[in-house]
Amino acid sequence: VGAEPLPSWNDGPAKAAILEFVAAVSDPGGDDHVPEAERIAVIDNDGTLWCERPAYVQALFLGERLREQVQADPALGERAVTRALLAGDLHAALACGLGELSDVLLATHAGLTTEEFAGVAAAWLARAPHPRFGRPCSELVYAPMLELLDLLRASGFGVFIVTGGGVEFVRAASERLYGVGPDDVVGSAVEVGFERRDGRVVLVRQAKLKGSPNEGVPKVINIQAHIGRRPIFAAGNSAGDREMLDFATTGPHRSLGIVIDHDDEEREYAYAGESMTDPSAEAIADSAARAGWTVVSMRDEWRRVFADPPG
Amino acid sequence: VGAEPLPSWNDGPAKAAILEFVAAVSDPGGDDHVPEAERIAVIDNDGTLWCERPAYVQALFLGERLREQVQADPALGERAVTRALLAGDLHAALACGLGELSDVLLATHAGLTTEEFAGVAAAWLARAPHPRFGRPCSELVYAPMLELLDLLRASGFGVFIVTGGGVEFVRAASERLYGVGPDDVVGSAVEVGFERRDGRVVLVRQAKLKGSPNEGVPKVINIQAHIGRRPIFAAGNSAGDREMLDFATTGPHRSLGIVIDHDDEEREYAYAGESMTDPSAEAIADSAARAGWTVVSMRDEWRRVFADPPG
Repeated sequence: VGAEPLPSWNDGPAKAAILEFVAAVSDPGGDDHVPEAERIAVIDNDGTLWCERPAYVQALFLGERLREQVQADPALGERAVTRALLAGDLHAALACGLGELSDVLLATHAGLTTEEFAGVAAAWLARAPHPRFGRPCSELVYAPMLELLDLLRASGFGVFIVTGGGVEFVRAASERLYGVGPDDVVGSAVEVGFERRDGRVVLVRQAKLKGSPNEGVPKVINIQAHIGRRPIFAAGNSAGDREMLDFATTGPHRSLGIVIDHDDEEREYAYAGESMTDPSAEAIADSAARAGWTVVSMRDEWRRVFADPPG
Repeated sequence: VGAEPLPSWNDGPAKAAILEFVAAVSDPGGDDHVPEAERIAVIDNDGTLWCERPAYVQALFLGERLREQVQADPALGERAVTRALLAGDLHAALACGLGELSDVLLATHAGLTTEEFAGVAAAWLARAPHPRFGRPCSELVYAPMLELLDLLRASGFGVFIVTGGGVEFVRAASERLYGVGPDDVVGSAVEVGFERRDGRVVLVRQAKLKGSPNEGVPKVINIQAHIGRRPIFAAGNSAGDREMLDFATTGPHRSLGIVIDHDDEEREYAYAGESMTDPSAEAIADSAARAGWTVVSMRDEWRRVFADPPG
């Protein structure tokens, strides 16, 4: 972080709130000082760090593999959940039940070892183009958010990604895109089986979700399980981030919650952030207004949206 | 790490193997070089970093609270598992079944928030004296292992504790004792409930284990879940560490597994490391001989055993 932090942010209320908060908690003589070990930041991924429209990046990844599987096994294509998925209608797919949905989605990569999966995901991420912007999906990362991660790290924060996406999928890109190592990613997980293959211990992906998707209350429980401390900073963009924001902003220390508002149809998309698993959950904008979280208008607060491709 | 690493280690085969391994994987021009991000070390806690005899430190902690509860509720004291626990007979307690055992053990702190529990555990750890050595249990940390952690960190390793003990219990001491933050501790876990108390989101401990104890195969599964990478260094002392050592030492990179042999009755204890949950598991010394792991004789290889109290 040089002389001018957050260069891709306009001089608006969000930038001011972030700079003031970071300065306050890291000023050793100030009333709001927080010891460095307790400066924990948790950041959602889809729609907060990278573009999640017209579909979650991971849904595009799974959809491509599912299409291949349907060609080999037409009966799979007859299932309602498969039809909904291939039509890109996540709501219809969810209406088939989370069990049915995760059955089909997780079967796409069942049988691969975790190491094989990481290779497949990284290769796909580097090539698959976004349907609107043409660039690889994994390059549609928000430049202002990368600057925010840098500012937090330079101010002694531990920065964690807490995603509803699959933890191993996001890990396949997190170091390269965000400078966040695999051990600092918390996400949804699949069951794995312990096997020995050719003398090596490997872990083999099963077609079964491990616990609940990492959305809503599970985000909080998984933050505690993984990080072991209450965060003082949280950023999200959907109703699935509400409990995480609530956890971060109701602790004993000074805290800040921010919510990205996708109101920029021209440069990105305009939509309200819904919970992935609970469409009836309170709109995140309403939660933010009630709780005093800082809403970031993408249109007004961001000087530019997408970062340059990683080097 | 100054000019002379591992000063508490005698110039024996274990010290030589460690120094050679660390130098080889961190030499950028060498054949065995491992990129820094993949230099992951996983270290068991009980019997590997601190003394686990005559009883696990956590068993002493839980036993003290259980005694208080029995005074308030004599019926609790009539249960076979309680009697075994209060007699310090973990085998008899385990014979009552892991469900029954964890029921009673986890009820000792059910209802506390994770933050309250951290305070209770830290306070106990700082005061409770070890029955033989008089000093607080948490001061019976092995000086040679602290030096090893320092050497690993100075050589670009990410150092993680992977313990059969309760993750929140070990976290209450890990930063102070080992310089390992709570997010770098992987352990057994209890279920927690999401609640709002006085306007704050809190997580409340339940009297229920979350998944399996972190021993044996679960150690490997939890390493992947938490760290997201295969380690290249592992240290343990019991049959419950076998699979973790196997995972670390059967990957594509150069690796090292070490096993602490408690053969020093005079300065510490002499015993063979058994699995906590499976007394019939192969002795770790036999696994080590077969797999080529480096066995560390406490008596012969360590110049001193216990570190000075943390400052």
